[in-house]
Amino acid sequence: MSGRLAVIGTGPGDPDLLAPRAAAALADATDLVGYGPYLDRIAAREGQARHASDNRVELGRARLALGLAADGRRVAVVSGGDSGVFGMAAAVFEAIEAHPPWHGLDVEVIPGISALLAAAARLGAPLGHDFCAISLSDNLKPWPVVLARLVAAASAGFVIALYNPASRARPWQLGAAFEALRGVLSGSTPVAFAAAISRADERVVVTTLEAADAGEADMRTLVLIGTEATRRIDRPHGAPWLYTPRQHGSPA
Amino acid sequence: MSGRLAVIGTGPGDPDLLAPRAAAALADATDLVGYGPYLDRIAAREGQARHASDNRVELGRARLALGLAADGRRVAVVSGGDSGVFGMAAAVFEAIEAHPPWHGLDVEVIPGISALLAAAARLGAPLGHDFCAISLSDNLKPWPVVLARLVAAASAGFVIALYNPASRARPWQLGAAFEALRGVLSGSTPVAFAAAISRADERVVVTTLEAADAGEADMRTLVLIGTEATRRIDRPHGAPWLYTPRQHGSPA
Repeated sequence: MSGRLAVIGTGPGDPDLLAPRAAAALADATDLVGYGPYLDRIAAREGQARHASDNRVELGRARLALGLAADGRRVAVVSGGDSGVFGMAAAVFEAIEAHPPWHGLDVEVIPGISALLAAAARLGAPLGHDFCAISLSDNLKPWPVVLARLVAAASAGFVIALYNPASRARPWQLGAAFEALRGVLSGSTPVAFAAAISRADERVVVTTLEAADAGEADMRTLVLIGTEATRRIDRPHGAPWLYTPRQHGSPA
Repeated sequence: MSGRLAVIGTGPGDPDLLAPRAAAALADATDLVGYGPYLDRIAAREGQARHASDNRVELGRARLALGLAADGRRVAVVSGGDSGVFGMAAAVFEAIEAHPPWHGLDVEVIPGISALLAAAARLGAPLGHDFCAISLSDNLKPWPVVLARLVAAASAGFVIALYNPASRARPWQLGAAFEALRGVLSGSTPVAFAAAISRADERVVVTTLEAADAGEADMRTLVLIGTEATRRIDRPHGAPWLYTPRQHGSPA
């Protein structure tokens, strides 16, 4: 069997933020497998098969891709951002583990610029020291676990990046998360909503925990919650910068 | 003033993992500012000034770069990985905040593939669910704060990525961190050491918390500590894969 599987994160969206290794693997693939909207961002190439699927069927999508690679195809599994950060990579390895004939397949994970890094760069340097990333979806873990992680992280002084903050099927979680965090962090703690970074419909809102409105977020939004040390710099033009000082306990 | 400052993360090292936007900003710069070993990885361009500096002088380096940009130069400040993750971006904004004439400068942070993402991709999908990044250096925060964050993160079920695990001046911290984590996590929890990912001297070691030897790490190493759900897949050839299942409480 001479097929191969590349698991690719396509970055935040602008091709200018896609590394050459990922671009080459996309161009080389005989088959692209992924969630429809991510595939739509990739330029078509003649003779390349596209296997678009709905969201939330990651394991089936992973098995399809592995089966094609085992049949000798050159397959690219496509996620937005980085495939290892709430993307397809974990589903691919779950499928591999369950099926020993796939253990010897040629699989490469090609890293990408995650939404977390793209949003942070757009805002300044909010991740300036220790930080964490939490998916707010309770499809794959119980809500009390999500809440306990939020409170543990905020109490310990981590900057928090929230993935999957809201969707039509999960409208209330972000409001409940803000409520829980208000019990731990000062109301003046900076909060930012960063949506579709680097794309035409990019949108950035910088506010505070006290004023944060969960209605600002949708599926495409990353929500960043600073620490009490996180600073805001207003500018003559453009959105304010946010940064978190590197030095503990001594802002600026 | 028509100068500008680009704050650039050059990724893990292989130019194949550097996005075009960062490559263009490096090529366009009249001045490169950064820690010597990072500048050494960038191809020379005639007429481009290089301001190499020692490590641990981030704020002075940031002020130099901002002063050059204010004088009308096109300056690139260079970090490895992503500049917002334990890189130069926070120091640049600290310097900007302290000097109001710089608040209107044209500053762009260009994200890069962080060591965290490069190491995770090389290993499989160890960040499969919620994760955090902690710098183990106690130069900028007291050691008890580092320890408290480690224990809080492990207890709450985060995968942990440790930056700056060891250096000649800080030889004992990683051993003490493993000791503290052994009080919280099972000895069979997967641990990986990933050094110089994508470069000629790349080195990957996959072990367990029980067996982890702090002597494996140096300044260039990222240490990844899984959760009790993190799985190891042995392969017919090559290092084993690690992945953390997406589903809480139900490995594979």
